[in-house]
Amino acid sequence: MNTFGINYKVTLIGSSHGNMVGVVIDGVPSGEQIDTQQIKQELKYRRPGQSDVTTDRDEKDELIIESGILNERTTGEPLVAYVRNKDIDSSYYDEIKNTPRPGHADYPAFVKYKGANDYRGGGRFSGRMTVGLVIAGNIAKQILFKSGIKFVAYSKEIGEISGSEEKYNLQESFIYSDANPVRVADPDIIMPVQTKIVSMKDEGDSVGGIVECQITGLQVGLGEPFFDSIESRIAHMIFSIPAVKGIEFGSGFNAARMQGSQHNDQYYVDPQGVIKTKTNNAGGILGGLSNGMPVVFRVAFKPTSSVSKDQTTVNTETMQESHLKVRGRHDPCIVPRAVPVVNNAAACVLLDLVLEGKKTDLEGVN
Amino acid sequence: MNTFGINYKVTLIGSSHGNMVGVVIDGVPSGEQIDTQQIKQELKYRRPGQSDVTTDRDEKDELIIESGILNERTTGEPLVAYVRNKDIDSSYYDEIKNTPRPGHADYPAFVKYKGANDYRGGGRFSGRMTVGLVIAGNIAKQILFKSGIKFVAYSKEIGEISGSEEKYNLQESFIYSDANPVRVADPDIIMPVQTKIVSMKDEGDSVGGIVECQITGLQVGLGEPFFDSIESRIAHMIFSIPAVKGIEFGSGFNAARMQGSQHNDQYYVDPQGVIKTKTNNAGGILGGLSNGMPVVFRVAFKPTSSVSKDQTTVNTETMQESHLKVRGRHDPCIVPRAVPVVNNAAACVLLDLVLEGKKTDLEGVN
Amino acid sequence: MNTFGINYKVTLIGSSHGNMVGVVIDGVPSGEQIDTQQIKQELKYRRPGQSDVTTDRDEKDELIIESGILNERTTGEPLVAYVRNKDIDSSYYDEIKNTPRPGHADYPAFVKYKGANDYRGGGRFSGRMTVGLVIAGNIAKQILFKSGIKFVAYSKEIGEISGSEEKYNLQESFIYSDANPVRVADPDIIMPVQTKIVSMKDEGDSVGGIVECQITGLQVGLGEPFFDSIESRIAHMIFSIPAVKGIEFGSGFNAARMQGSQHNDQYYVDPQGVIKTKTNNAGGILGGLSNGMPVVFRVAFKPTSSVSKDQTTVNTETMQESHLKVRGRHDPCIVPRAVPVVNNAAACVLLDLVLEGKKTDLEGVN
Amino acid sequence: MNTFGINYKVTLIGSSHGNMVGVVIDGVPSGEQIDTQQIKQELKYRRPGQSDVTTDRDEKDELIIESGILNERTTGEPLVAYVRNKDIDSSYYDEIKNTPRPGHADYPAFVKYKGANDYRGGGRFSGRMTVGLVIAGNIAKQILFKSGIKFVAYSKEIGEISGSEEKYNLQESFIYSDANPVRVADPDIIMPVQTKIVSMKDEGDSVGGIVECQITGLQVGLGEPFFDSIESRIAHMIFSIPAVKGIEFGSGFNAARMQGSQHNDQYYVDPQGVIKTKTNNAGGILGGLSNGMPVVFRVAFKPTSSVSKDQTTVNTETMQESHLKVRGRHDPCIVPRAVPVVNNAAACVLLDLVLEGKKTDLEGVN
Repeated sequence: MNTFGINYKVTLIGSSHGNMVGVVIDGVPSGEQIDTQQIKQELKYRRPGQSDVTTDRDEKDELIIESGILNERTTGEPLVAYVRNKDIDSSYYDEIKNTPRPGHADYPAFVKYKGANDYRGGGRFSGRMTVGLVIAGNIAKQILFKSGIKFVAYSKEIGEISGSEEKYNLQESFIYSDANPVRVADPDIIMPVQTKIVSMKDEGDSVGGIVECQITGLQVGLGEPFFDSIESRIAHMIFSIPAVKGIEFGSGFNAARMQGSQHNDQYYVDPQGVIKTKTNNAGGILGGLSNGMPVVFRVAFKPTSSVSKDQTTVNTETMQESHLKVRGRHDPCIVPRAVPVVNNAAACVLLDLVLEGKKTDLEGVN
Repeated sequence: MNTFGINYKVTLIGSSHGNMVGVVIDGVPSGEQIDTQQIKQELKYRRPGQSDVTTDRDEKDELIIESGILNERTTGEPLVAYVRNKDIDSSYYDEIKNTPRPGHADYPAFVKYKGANDYRGGGRFSGRMTVGLVIAGNIAKQILFKSGIKFVAYSKEIGEISGSEEKYNLQESFIYSDANPVRVADPDIIMPVQTKIVSMKDEGDSVGGIVECQITGLQVGLGEPFFDSIESRIAHMIFSIPAVKGIEFGSGFNAARMQGSQHNDQYYVDPQGVIKTKTNNAGGILGGLSNGMPVVFRVAFKPTSSVSKDQTTVNTETMQESHLKVRGRHDPCIVPRAVPVVNNAAACVLLDLVLEGKKTDLEGVN
Repeated sequence: MNTFGINYKVTLIGSSHGNMVGVVIDGVPSGEQIDTQQIKQELKYRRPGQSDVTTDRDEKDELIIESGILNERTTGEPLVAYVRNKDIDSSYYDEIKNTPRPGHADYPAFVKYKGANDYRGGGRFSGRMTVGLVIAGNIAKQILFKSGIKFVAYSKEIGEISGSEEKYNLQESFIYSDANPVRVADPDIIMPVQTKIVSMKDEGDSVGGIVECQITGLQVGLGEPFFDSIESRIAHMIFSIPAVKGIEFGSGFNAARMQGSQHNDQYYVDPQGVIKTKTNNAGGILGGLSNGMPVVFRVAFKPTSSVSKDQTTVNTETMQESHLKVRGRHDPCIVPRAVPVVNNAAACVLLDLVLEGKKTDLEGVN
Repeated sequence: MNTFGINYKVTLIGSSHGNMVGVVIDGVPSGEQIDTQQIKQELKYRRPGQSDVTTDRDEKDELIIESGILNERTTGEPLVAYVRNKDIDSSYYDEIKNTPRPGHADYPAFVKYKGANDYRGGGRFSGRMTVGLVIAGNIAKQILFKSGIKFVAYSKEIGEISGSEEKYNLQESFIYSDANPVRVADPDIIMPVQTKIVSMKDEGDSVGGIVECQITGLQVGLGEPFFDSIESRIAHMIFSIPAVKGIEFGSGFNAARMQGSQHNDQYYVDPQGVIKTKTNNAGGILGGLSNGMPVVFRVAFKPTSSVSKDQTTVNTETMQESHLKVRGRHDPCIVPRAVPVVNNAAACVLLDLVLEGKKTDLEGVN
């Protein structure tokens, strides 16, 4: 099934080399003011061909909203929005039909669909499907912003280069500035990271990295115990993004090496009379619920699978070993373009949980 | 909502200090042979008070199956099964009602439910809720076993001690033997890990660790693209287990530091004529689908939050800083008891996906 | 799947001749005051053996609440409640295993489950499963009552006898009085209906009838367009009750014979300044939404299928024609006992929709 | 929520006077051959302006398939298809914004959405939304046809005129012939029904009717007990079609006036060795499951609410009584155009249940 969410239901439509890619959203609260300019802006941050660290596939990704927004307000109808696929070159995919690319979904998809799926350009498995997440996420963010909920994401680490937190600038205007095509938070590492990625591109290789996302302004108690914990829902969503290999919240894997007395975040009352914790190892979440501190999580991205170096594969018809150099236009590092995807994917989840919370609110029924 | 799964729907019932904890499962295929002895066995591996590395709360956790199995065969009805709570001492919880324990869900749950929830013993947030996962998971495993699908989990690392893979013994009989109460795979680290945990208990502190789970025998193509990817579903489930801080598949966070040419698993044909990969950085999953290699994932557990050392908190009535030493009986390390939970939680997910796959199978409708 | 509802999720558990029958409810708002005495009372109205117009199976149906209510308040946990099956006589069912009873689910269930289901006493297909609906519905009614939403149901017609509306007494105290075991609204037809049913019992035959349900106090705009229309949801629920053959809202089938100018309910403003309609052909629903008038629907019940007269069937082993007189204890007319079932089943639906409405409420998110 | 189905998930998109109306279908089995010509044909049967008994709104309703079908085979992606709205005249709807039309959703929708919804032409409440059901249903029918499952629907009664069953011609070629614009089964009543409808149009009034649908070729045991009974699911779907006031299966409301000995369908073995019943009061369904006989149900449609006769309403701004003659182009009788809608809506449900059945099939998992 291609739908995520219980209350804010996001269905991804289209495929990489089909007519379009986009989204249908059911459960959009009606009457909400939406600035479509912001959606377009965010699509640009995700767009291929935006800088020298991204793929050369050139898609303008112009937003078409078929229904659900009238005069910049949501109507409550299912919202249908997409961008057209234009710069398509599918010729290559027929060529490699029987020689699955290592690291791609080609082989299991071939077995699963017996050839019936639209395999061109990765089809439904393509990172291009995340266009729909960006659209749905930005709408969610605009709705949540009115309640003071904000999202920021950035490249925490690329090609083993990570900056120092003291120098972080988490302003959106900095992260998404043209001068920072790699979307890092520490200005000093823009150049080394950019150089690293371009060198990978030149070598026909690729490199991975880590995106961190921070969410502030959540009310205490948001989320549900167990299966609808904030972590469960965010992790579910994030692992649907292609190339993700891991996710951790707060102290994350480091927690495994700590002692309880050290890991527990001690409570205090801040000058505004708000209960806070001195550290944030919990990553803002206890028992699946928001404790009022920033929700923090990190996502590991593998290096892009499309590399033009020689690789060994198997011809599925002849069952003979075969060799392959992946052609086509590909990102040497997906991390910079993944930043707005992670950010917006998280927003879809949070709006879903906020709507869920409205139902379970004590004052609600009576 | 307290339900997980689309086809094999698991609802956790009860609470830590209520009458019972257990599970209702809707969607159990009918006519399946189930050995209830195996469920009981697995509950023992999760049971508190089983060894000196676990809590002293003594629960026999005797399985009661109210419906859904008749003469050791599933009937297709919702399966209702639980264990009674017996060794309950709730007195302590009233005492700490207004002084939320650091690291526990107390504070956000208090705000969320305004006191209406059953907070005793952690209520719905207690690790005791995982009894239902073990029951549901074991039934799933018995059904999946007939198709050759097998699960193994073990403590990969506890208190910074990890063994060496060459010495691994992944036989269930070893992992769950009485001589291996810490559930590690390398026999040489049983003793040091056990010593570490007991020393934590003595100090009134706790320690975290990592559980690894491996799943073999999956058919190629199992899983769905995007939101129902194997990773998405497993991660969703796993993060509902209390104390989990991170999850990674295959190369995991390490992938962020690799290059594509090195990370891509190269294909070959094995002597039996099966297509395999030389490495398994993918962790058995490409594009959300099984590629036939073992599915491998690791789960980071934080150190148990209940430590008897002095901690700072806030009295939610007076809004004054307050101090707290958590009393009660608690695990100094949750990892050994988490091993069967991770194992069985994963089985619930896999059966759900296998049933899903039956629907989308090409030959199916006609 | 055995679950109904999106927000107030009702799962029926148990089976007719198993240990128990009951319900698990997920999504119960927490902190709601529940008078368990009322649930018990309503179970009595549904109980077999309550009068001479019902079956002789004698079940006390004593309510057991395992979790979800603590000190007469809902905790927000899944609510688990059931009654034990006691007066079970399953011997007969083995006897008729291969000769499916006409009008019962025996034959298709046998084919579907290949004998794996618990067929005794109708198993999952038994009217006894509605115990869970009564429990879940009464809890829903108690929650909805605080918002002024009320339900009344009664036998509109039994064995072709229907009373006259001018004489109707729709007080619950009258409908459920001991003097009115047939649950009609017109006092003058109690006796003839009772006589009719008893005569059927004596003949070893049965008779059908119609239940009407009225729901008042709904806010204007409740419900959703299309698939979650009030009618869609109520009809879905009602057809899950065994023996239902039809449902109609407002003018119902009669609407097919009317003209638009006559059928349209004209608006006016009542003395309290409330917009109302002069007639109620709409049955309180327009476009799937409540228009503020009473929601009115009627449900047709077939005559009970268990009759002791000689019937023709087929032996599924020998494939020879066979004869059968259904033995056992059965209701000569299910309608009186169906009254509280329809009433409470509708309440489950309405609470589900009220909770849904909270999410889509404009003021909600901000 | 605007989605129906668990396995074959149908989401209706667009609105009456928006850009388009259509459907997104998730869960379409991949690799199925689909003749798009058949979809187009069926849209013509539903199309406005097709004959003198329908509205004058002239929409060509040309099918656009954006994704999900490639080279006439389903790809397994969400299928996105719609028709553009062209002949739109919305001027009238602003005029009547504050004077809700009797019998329409105007008033409750106004209260619910506080003016945020796209009310033009009935918006989401318009019968035009059923375009999506016809598209989704036809695709379902084409898939089901390969398993021998067939659907026929026709106007059983219009304006109190019903034919005689002996004369029925249930061939699709007859029901949908140009000579039979009223879609009846008895050739002798084509003319009187047509005359009746045209006279209503001339009077500015409208008339209701009944559609019957028959489904053959279902395997015994299809469907699920209780909430997913065939009746529950079909009724849920059918009541989402605008103007429906009632539904009944088999003997329907008539069952309420029968005795059990008479109502029970007796079994026999037909010459081909198949178990059948002598009568079909069950309407092909017992205990929610198919018993192998034709599934038969009837749907009551109210007379169209848009009549040009003088009606009384209330101005929601001034709260004064007001008068209204509905202008615009409307159907004097919706029944003929409802025939393909009922037919296809049922097909969506049946495919959903067939896919569900694959999961619960005993042989399935192993």
